Amino acid sequence: MTQAELAAKIEHTILKPEATEAEVMKVAAEGAQYRFASVCIAPVWVAKASAALRGSGVPVCSVVAFPHGTSKSTVKAIEATVAVKDGAGEIDVVAHLPLLAAGNVDAVRAELLEVAKAARAVRRDVVLKVILETAYLLSLGAERGEAAIAAGCRAARESGFDFVKTSTGFHPAGGASAVAVALLKKYGEGMLVKASGGIRDWATAKAMLDAGADRLGMSGAVGIISAECRMSPGGA
Amino acid sequence: MTQAELAAKIEHTILKPEATEAEVMKVAAEGAQYRFASVCIAPVWVAKASAALRGSGVPVCSVVAFPHGTSKSTVKAIEATVAVKDGAGEIDVVAHLPLLAAGNVDAVRAELLEVAKAARAVRRDVVLKVILETAYLLSLGAERGEAAIAAGCRAARESGFDFVKTSTGFHPAGGASAVAVALLKKYGEGMLVKASGGIRDWATAKAMLDAGADRLGMSGAVGIISAECRMSPGGA
Repeated sequence: MTQAELAAKIEHTILKPEATEAEVMKVAAEGAQYRFASVCIAPVWVAKASAALRGSGVPVCSVVAFPHGTSKSTVKAIEATVAVKDGAGEIDVVAHLPLLAAGNVDAVRAELLEVAKAARAVRRDVVLKVILETAYLLSLGAERGEAAIAAGCRAARESGFDFVKTSTGFHPAGGASAVAVALLKKYGEGMLVKASGGIRDWATAKAMLDAGADRLGMSGAVGIISAECRMSPGGA
Repeated sequence: MTQAELAAKIEHTILKPEATEAEVMKVAAEGAQYRFASVCIAPVWVAKASAALRGSGVPVCSVVAFPHGTSKSTVKAIEATVAVKDGAGEIDVVAHLPLLAAGNVDAVRAELLEVAKAARAVRRDVVLKVILETAYLLSLGAERGEAAIAAGCRAARESGFDFVKTSTGFHPAGGASAVAVALLKKYGEGMLVKASGGIRDWATAKAMLDAGADRLGMSGAVGIISAECRMSPGGA
């Protein structure tokens, strides 16, 4: 894989709550420089980063109800539409975890449909991803976790979502795992899979890609793609 | 202090993102039973818990942009008004941390004013608290942290907020401390102080009260007030 092919799978991410404007705009500039798949940032920065990235071909990805997912669906829908109006081309929504844990497809679908309808009314081709917090779901036990992931995938597909995503990166239960990615791949037919949370080196990134991830959310990607490039210049 | 006096200072809290309806409604019922100062819960549960607590004299406290504070101010204002319409009597808003860290009083005040105007338009006497994430601010250094806390307190007072509050309980820098409470007391003149985050035993709770806290946000309060009551029946 060339550096460019790897970069095209990575969402260059800065979501720590204390991130400054300078830090976020540096990530945005790196997004354009390395042609990452997107620049993933908090709602408060979307307008500014979108303006900076205009014409670069690199979209801004924003997050909704991040990282707890406990906002009401009506507020999630509003936060999504505001981000799209501000220029976001991709939106990562945190699902309400107890609904997922209970395998309540109808309730998760109702929530995701409300967000999707609102966001697509502003921009029809906005890319929508749902964060299932898979490490938490799998901490409930393998069988229950798998059922919850299956429920989340079905609700996402039936709501017209484009991606299912493992993790916020902020839940104490942990981030992405090859097991979780494989389950998203299995149940997320027709959608793409984003792995995120704790992917900090090339070995972990490669494990996620091997398990079936289409995209990686990473906050330290510049160091990794540079190092990987040194290891195998021109591709592997 | 009698058990009733202690309970009247405690906000009985459940804010973990995976909290189920059954867990939240148990906390609400305990709120009424022990007459806590409030029941502090996520937005998605406010309508249901408010209905259950109607007539109990115990208000529901909800959170806004929790726990990162990185939602746009317009979305924070909407989330606050939705919670008040759902029945919340108290609202804890997470400030945007980099604005605080920079000591940017004008920007913090603009954000808090927008939330306060919107919330008070629905219910004039809603109790408003701002979460400053003091452990993070103090991790920037004692002098810079104190300046940031002073800026946050000034912005809150000038926006008509009722309380300044230490922590979300979810930031890796930590929760409440006696130092932080003392600084909120010093700079928060005319407002009340809420200590929260990591207050899990009576010794810590007492240290916060001794430092000047008017309210404590706690998730394990029933065990503590029962134990404290056994230690000193009828008061101390």
